[in-house]
Amino acid sequence: MLIIVKVSGVLKFVFLGMLSIVLLGTGNLAVHLFEAFASSEVAQVVQVYGRDKNALSYFENVVAVTSDPVKLQIADIYICAVSDNAIEMVSKYPEFKEAIILHCSGAVPITVLPEESRRGVFYPLQTFSKGRKVDFSKVPICIEADSPEVQNVLLSLAKSISDTCVVIDSTQRKALHLAAVFANNFTNHLLHRASSICEDNRVPFSLLKPLISETVAKLENLNPLDAQTGPARRGDHATQQEHLKLMSDLQDQEIYRILSQAIQDTYGN
Amino acid sequence: MLIIVKVSGVLKFVFLGMLSIVLLGTGNLAVHLFEAFASSEVAQVVQVYGRDKNALSYFENVVAVTSDPVKLQIADIYICAVSDNAIEMVSKYPEFKEAIILHCSGAVPITVLPEESRRGVFYPLQTFSKGRKVDFSKVPICIEADSPEVQNVLLSLAKSISDTCVVIDSTQRKALHLAAVFANNFTNHLLHRASSICEDNRVPFSLLKPLISETVAKLENLNPLDAQTGPARRGDHATQQEHLKLMSDLQDQEIYRILSQAIQDTYGN
Repeated sequence: MLIIVKVSGVLKFVFLGMLSIVLLGTGNLAVHLFEAFASSEVAQVVQVYGRDKNALSYFENVVAVTSDPVKLQIADIYICAVSDNAIEMVSKYPEFKEAIILHCSGAVPITVLPEESRRGVFYPLQTFSKGRKVDFSKVPICIEADSPEVQNVLLSLAKSISDTCVVIDSTQRKALHLAAVFANNFTNHLLHRASSICEDNRVPFSLLKPLISETVAKLENLNPLDAQTGPARRGDHATQQEHLKLMSDLQDQEIYRILSQAIQDTYGN
Repeated sequence: MLIIVKVSGVLKFVFLGMLSIVLLGTGNLAVHLFEAFASSEVAQVVQVYGRDKNALSYFENVVAVTSDPVKLQIADIYICAVSDNAIEMVSKYPEFKEAIILHCSGAVPITVLPEESRRGVFYPLQTFSKGRKVDFSKVPICIEADSPEVQNVLLSLAKSISDTCVVIDSTQRKALHLAAVFANNFTNHLLHRASSICEDNRVPFSLLKPLISETVAKLENLNPLDAQTGPARRGDHATQQEHLKLMSDLQDQEIYRILSQAIQDTYGN
């Protein structure tokens, strides 16, 4: 429970016992957060809200659930773990305005949350897929808060489930989210394209897995600028022409041209 | 030592003791191969040839070296571990035409090797960087040979340093090499771009490393088609517009547009 006290004229939050959390949302992120908080010694999820009764059923044996926004319990913290375009609406549901209200999005500024509430952002920088367990202690959590008091509570909350907690503002978080799109979404799509090329030519994609692992493992002691290899890096135009002839898919060719050009421009070939 | 014998009317290679190898080349791949063969119980590098006397000095305390192609020793196997455009020239140096001559390139057909020799390809599917040790037992080696006898020798050679050895032809190898460009070269360049975006916005790139590791770890139980997440996968155009506004680099924007479009086309958004 959160209590506000005045220490030497400064407002402070003090929490007695566990922080109570109401989780708004039932998607991938909500499931992963729920599981992470299950082993937190600082906070406890006391209720899960969601419109989708089927998705709610995952939670109903272990915690109170509701699909009626009017029936939200009083809690210390409300976490909106919903899609970006639903945050603004869902964040208006809690009527208890003394609580802290959080969203979990990389792309959305803190200011979409209701101005009359204590506001914060709790952005776990990871890709969450259904049916794939994530070790939350290794997930960096990026914190933003509208006051130092809220920031301290969020840091306690984040540290109770993760080894890496940083305070960054909405602009930096948006940049980090963009960088994450390059580092995860786009690389994953290139892996899909590599997989399709293998399939089309009847070679097993599994042969590429050690190479893909090493691509990432290299980052332990090389930065990606120094780790670059391949025909574009060497300015080997003959191999590039051969590769272009091999691809029947026009989008494969376009991606190949643009990324090869980008590499050549980077290294001055 | 390789001996040719006729068994039931069929020519077979038999090797007595260790296979002797002359390594032609002193670059990254030559260094990594040399180190891998050091623990092979089937083959032994007896000489290293290279034009670059500085690079040769790495080898000279542990094995015979030469920078004169006329001074190549007689050996069972000559391995051309040189850049693609040097393979044809270097493969002509060995005068002992009874030997097996190999190149290590993904992109070059077996036919660039001298027709009068016993020819093969020994393609280790990995990215090799200076100063980064590679566990060769985990590197798939793709074999091609111009006869079943040579293929058997190459399989013994490959199995002595790697757990994964496959026989594939020049066309499949070229496709695999192309897939490797997508899976390693292009993904690495995207990681470089992600790193630059972080730097420009003063957020540490290290925050992205768990995400990057998970991108690859997901492949253990998901294929990349199913693992895709992010704004393009969701058809979230508002976030994409915000991201485009964030990028000052025109090439970043172009890559963002093309890859987002490719993802949307893949999932029908």
